[in-house]
Amino acid sequence: MSRSVILTLSCPDRTGIVARVSGFLFERGANILDAQQYDDPETGRFFMRTVFDPGARDADALKAEFERLAGELGMEWRLRGADERRRVMILASQTDHCLSDLIWRWRQGELPMDITAVVSNHPESTFPHTDLKGIAFHHLPVTAQTKAGQERALWGLIEETRTELVVLARYMQVLSDELATKLAGRCINIHHSFLPGFKGARPYHQAHARGVKVIGATAHFVTPDLDEGPIIEQDVERITHRDTPAALIRKGRDIERRVLARAVRWTLDDRVLLNGRKTVVFTD
Amino acid sequence: MSRSVILTLSCPDRTGIVARVSGFLFERGANILDAQQYDDPETGRFFMRTVFDPGARDADALKAEFERLAGELGMEWRLRGADERRRVMILASQTDHCLSDLIWRWRQGELPMDITAVVSNHPESTFPHTDLKGIAFHHLPVTAQTKAGQERALWGLIEETRTELVVLARYMQVLSDELATKLAGRCINIHHSFLPGFKGARPYHQAHARGVKVIGATAHFVTPDLDEGPIIEQDVERITHRDTPAALIRKGRDIERRVLARAVRWTLDDRVLLNGRKTVVFTD
Amino acid sequence: MSRSVILTLSCPDRTGIVARVSGFLFERGANILDAQQYDDPETGRFFMRTVFDPGARDADALKAEFERLAGELGMEWRLRGADERRRVMILASQTDHCLSDLIWRWRQGELPMDITAVVSNHPESTFPHTDLKGIAFHHLPVTAQTKAGQERALWGLIEETRTELVVLARYMQVLSDELATKLAGRCINIHHSFLPGFKGARPYHQAHARGVKVIGATAHFVTPDLDEGPIIEQDVERITHRDTPAALIRKGRDIERRVLARAVRWTLDDRVLLNGRKTVVFTD
Amino acid sequence: MSRSVILTLSCPDRTGIVARVSGFLFERGANILDAQQYDDPETGRFFMRTVFDPGARDADALKAEFERLAGELGMEWRLRGADERRRVMILASQTDHCLSDLIWRWRQGELPMDITAVVSNHPESTFPHTDLKGIAFHHLPVTAQTKAGQERALWGLIEETRTELVVLARYMQVLSDELATKLAGRCINIHHSFLPGFKGARPYHQAHARGVKVIGATAHFVTPDLDEGPIIEQDVERITHRDTPAALIRKGRDIERRVLARAVRWTLDDRVLLNGRKTVVFTD
Repeated sequence: MSRSVILTLSCPDRTGIVARVSGFLFERGANILDAQQYDDPETGRFFMRTVFDPGARDADALKAEFERLAGELGMEWRLRGADERRRVMILASQTDHCLSDLIWRWRQGELPMDITAVVSNHPESTFPHTDLKGIAFHHLPVTAQTKAGQERALWGLIEETRTELVVLARYMQVLSDELATKLAGRCINIHHSFLPGFKGARPYHQAHARGVKVIGATAHFVTPDLDEGPIIEQDVERITHRDTPAALIRKGRDIERRVLARAVRWTLDDRVLLNGRKTVVFTD
Repeated sequence: MSRSVILTLSCPDRTGIVARVSGFLFERGANILDAQQYDDPETGRFFMRTVFDPGARDADALKAEFERLAGELGMEWRLRGADERRRVMILASQTDHCLSDLIWRWRQGELPMDITAVVSNHPESTFPHTDLKGIAFHHLPVTAQTKAGQERALWGLIEETRTELVVLARYMQVLSDELATKLAGRCINIHHSFLPGFKGARPYHQAHARGVKVIGATAHFVTPDLDEGPIIEQDVERITHRDTPAALIRKGRDIERRVLARAVRWTLDDRVLLNGRKTVVFTD
Repeated sequence: MSRSVILTLSCPDRTGIVARVSGFLFERGANILDAQQYDDPETGRFFMRTVFDPGARDADALKAEFERLAGELGMEWRLRGADERRRVMILASQTDHCLSDLIWRWRQGELPMDITAVVSNHPESTFPHTDLKGIAFHHLPVTAQTKAGQERALWGLIEETRTELVVLARYMQVLSDELATKLAGRCINIHHSFLPGFKGARPYHQAHARGVKVIGATAHFVTPDLDEGPIIEQDVERITHRDTPAALIRKGRDIERRVLARAVRWTLDDRVLLNGRKTVVFTD
Repeated sequence: MSRSVILTLSCPDRTGIVARVSGFLFERGANILDAQQYDDPETGRFFMRTVFDPGARDADALKAEFERLAGELGMEWRLRGADERRRVMILASQTDHCLSDLIWRWRQGELPMDITAVVSNHPESTFPHTDLKGIAFHHLPVTAQTKAGQERALWGLIEETRTELVVLARYMQVLSDELATKLAGRCINIHHSFLPGFKGARPYHQAHARGVKVIGATAHFVTPDLDEGPIIEQDVERITHRDTPAALIRKGRDIERRVLARAVRWTLDDRVLLNGRKTVVFTD
């Protein structure tokens, strides 16, 4: 994959988009390796993801040339080398299952990203069993009184580290509308319920009280509307009457970490495109 | 299984229930074939299901003798021969997928029940592809004005046919509080969403609008609180952004029919016990 | 969908296929509604499925014009109106769960096909609960001695009815190599195990004896190599030690019918492309 | 749970086992909290797991008293305090996903065990990202020539550390028949396929070559028959034609670690009983 290039785009649908994009690539000697398109019949918006071998050109040269076509067709688009690693910041609070799992997968080579920092409102000693070796850790404590300042510090860190994607790996603080807006489309949260099933606090306790037979987790983009952002991925597991809230929390950890890992991997791989309140996910 | 007997019970937990019940059976020469117990740590209520070979006695004799023990321990209980078929009425409105599936399974021998009647607020001609041969069909039309009368007719039919279990197989009328109360614990509904996710009307359209990645269905006991009755069974299927509301409805039909069939089969097999707002399901 | 056209193709991979195909469509005023491509890195073969609104042309006109491009690129291809229903023959033996389910789905409008005939080696009375109304039924009994003649009669029927796709809906006769070869790529079988797990006879009994915790079913194209044809779809269900062979058969019926229904629907929708011993399935 | 006691047993079925066991407990003031029984109709063997509050007695006292009843009924049995942690040795070779996951879960409190040692045929530096802090690590290299000696060293270590359960967490050496026999019923392996689908080496490559649509993993007890030991747990995940062998290996890691973790947890919790070539698993 090292030389291949990923192009993702969305634009109002019209005749000939695929022909013009693939013609553009063909004329420049590129060879399409994988492609998926989707035309939303409701919004009239067209979505496309193409992976191609760029031939003689490099991604930067193509980017400059693609600009004109993109402008003409009113595209939101992104073109980057498959080996350009995105810069990712991970936020966590007190539990480490999602954090540890992301870092483990990253060390395994499953998540092609550079970790700019791990940030927590709790001290580093909260995570004795997470392998933070070689990763910058920032403790940004927060109270109701200091929230605005903490978010300024956080934003400063995001900018300073040129972070492109923020992952809330069970970060139990609600982002302010302002910060959520600034991070629109590039901040992923894992919610520990099968949304929209159990919004708000302690969803596993809610699930237990309601007696559901299946629990789940939801990875979604963060928006100012809490628990209402575009859903990227969900998964579930069966439970029974024997499962206590503690057992649900244990089973939930497994679901959360795999749902979040998938959402992050797909995002890093440019498989997730925003479509209003929803997403288009070109899964592998 | 023809000679085996199923005993289900629930009562406040106390020391020795299993010993006394199994001792009772042992003394009468019965042999336990399968048994599951559950002690709810929250409510302090004990639940038990036992299948046994009654030896020389028959179910009726045992019933009379068990009465005293049951009274002493404050039990809700049921004891019946595994070959005693429960009397079941199926209600449907305009779609036939759940109705056809239940009848097909019944004819296959998957659902040991006697169908007392199929009832619909639409005429029999609504179901040209359902094999109603040999099954009583009643058309009980209903409007807002005639609802009370229709429910009286329905209740009359339930009593007259000695119906023990009512299955709402996509019956799109909300039962009155009065009828729901009368049928407490013996009326199963299939809701076409993964409750409590999408209550109310057109849940697949709601799911589509929200952009969820998994849809489901829920079989639950009917209570006066609409969509809030004790959940018996739920199941789900993955969907993608490509799924239109029509595709969700199609996929949903498959989930609904298997969820409802399981809930009915488990109920017929005395595997479902009420536990307040929840159920204990001793699955096979 | 009524006016849209589906183009599927596969050919040796080379630069510019997407550009030339989409350019071809664009020049003729067609608008691509959905498209998926796949380039097999192992075989160097390229696969594509495109659904488009043909604009002013009809499918037949496009077909004639596409011929030249297809020839030049060495394509196997198919282009047809999304409303052209394929002609399908269903074969069954003694159990009706797959047969009944396919017919029920067809009557529901889930399977856009014309049923040319239902054929069985058992008489029509074997299927009292299948709604065969308006469908031609042929009883073609078979013994070891008469197999060659029966297959000739079967093939005659396939030709005479211009059947394009044959579905073995639990047809318990092994096709001869000759017939399997004639029907290559257009005969789907449902095998009642999770292949390659339990080949051969009585797979549920094999699964029970082995003590597996999950059972499954497999829909595949028929080839002369029994149980070795390209797999189209598989699905599974959890089981426990409590499941008897009879229970596995019951649970298996549910898996088989949904796996077969998906495989047939995807085939009718031109989503299944052969790739040597495997398939490419552009799922919806 | 700290004071509760777990009793598991199996014996030839006969009338009155439950009555006698529960009577035994009742007479001693114990209160049953959870119980499951199973009577295998094929082998005529009875299985039971009971969790109880022992009241005034402790586990050791009960053990001595239960001996007589157990002998009389020909039981294989085990009675232990729910807080008695089993001594577990983990073996791994070159990949760390199962090893890291088990250790992470153990540190989380999901796996109530004492780790006696981590043993590998590769040096400790093979696992730079596994948190081995405070855990004894033994490097026991092995070649075809030294296998007998290595297994003697391994067995010595098992005895010396009083290890009760050995977990092969992707330990890529086949145990000798002798060692497998010594560890019968207390050595769990994770096989990276959905057995009996793809036995032997490189199962993900086999699965890719065969074009299956679902892959899985299997946790089983080790026996001298390679890949044929009693299955404890299996799970699966859907795949598509797009999945390369490398992608299968990545997805497989997720399945393997959750399947192995469940099998180990259930075993630690005395939920897994041997039933000839199969298991009875009283899941939570």
